[in-house]
Amino acid sequence: MRVAQDRLDATFAALADPTRRAIVAQLARGDATVNELAAPFAMSLPAISKHLKVLERCGLISRTRQAQFRPCHLEQAELDSAASWIEENRRIWTERFDKLDAHLRDIRAEPAKTSPAKASPAKTRGEPADE
Amino acid sequence: MRVAQDRLDATFAALADPTRRAIVAQLARGDATVNELAAPFAMSLPAISKHLKVLERCGLISRTRQAQFRPCHLEQAELDSAASWIEENRRIWTERFDKLDAHLRDIRAEPAKTSPAKASPAKTRGEPADE
Repeated sequence: MRVAQDRLDATFAALADPTRRAIVAQLARGDATVNELAAPFAMSLPAISKHLKVLERCGLISRTRQAQFRPCHLEQAELDSAASWIEENRRIWTERFDKLDAHLRDIRAEPAKTSPAKASPAKTRGEPADE
Repeated sequence: MRVAQDRLDATFAALADPTRRAIVAQLARGDATVNELAAPFAMSLPAISKHLKVLERCGLISRTRQAQFRPCHLEQAELDSAASWIEENRRIWTERFDKLDAHLRDIRAEPAKTSPAKASPAKTRGEPADE
């Protein structure tokens, strides 16, 4: 539990930076080397490497040991964990509103139920009330 | 675009803390006052207030001005933005694997197409090849 919380802390913190999000977005399209990842940014290789270390530490990316190329690879599981946490809370929130909505519909329907007993069934059969 | 990026930075940074995530999770279940939000934590009210300020600044929560009670309210839109960003990148990632999968299936199907023209139709009719 504690480990899962720590990982979520690190994952959300890693995503709280536009360069790191851009790197994740590029890796979603395919593995890439540090040089390829650095290309779109006006940033030194050591600066990009620092961002990659943050992403690697929280498990969002992994790096293979293919000599000097070491392509970076997006790890879907960590992105899934962050998505799950948000989704769970959106679901709870949405269900609450759905319940509130149903409750408001019940309240609005209530006056019909409390109207004279004879009139209601007649109305549902489309016949005139016998009074 | 820049504003949207800054908001995402702030939202992900706000979610990178277990106390703030617990507050968001509680508010998903309904509005709550600072006292109610502080109750589950062994934390001073000023410490909780500091976390609430972080959540308020990035737009994840809002506070009404009802005298000293000021209930906190979860703002779905900010949670949606964070979820959308993650979802978009999971989608790109998944589509890439679906394409790769389809490509591998094509490659596996290829040898049948390149085998002798006479033998293939015979096989599909369940008849012996006429050679």
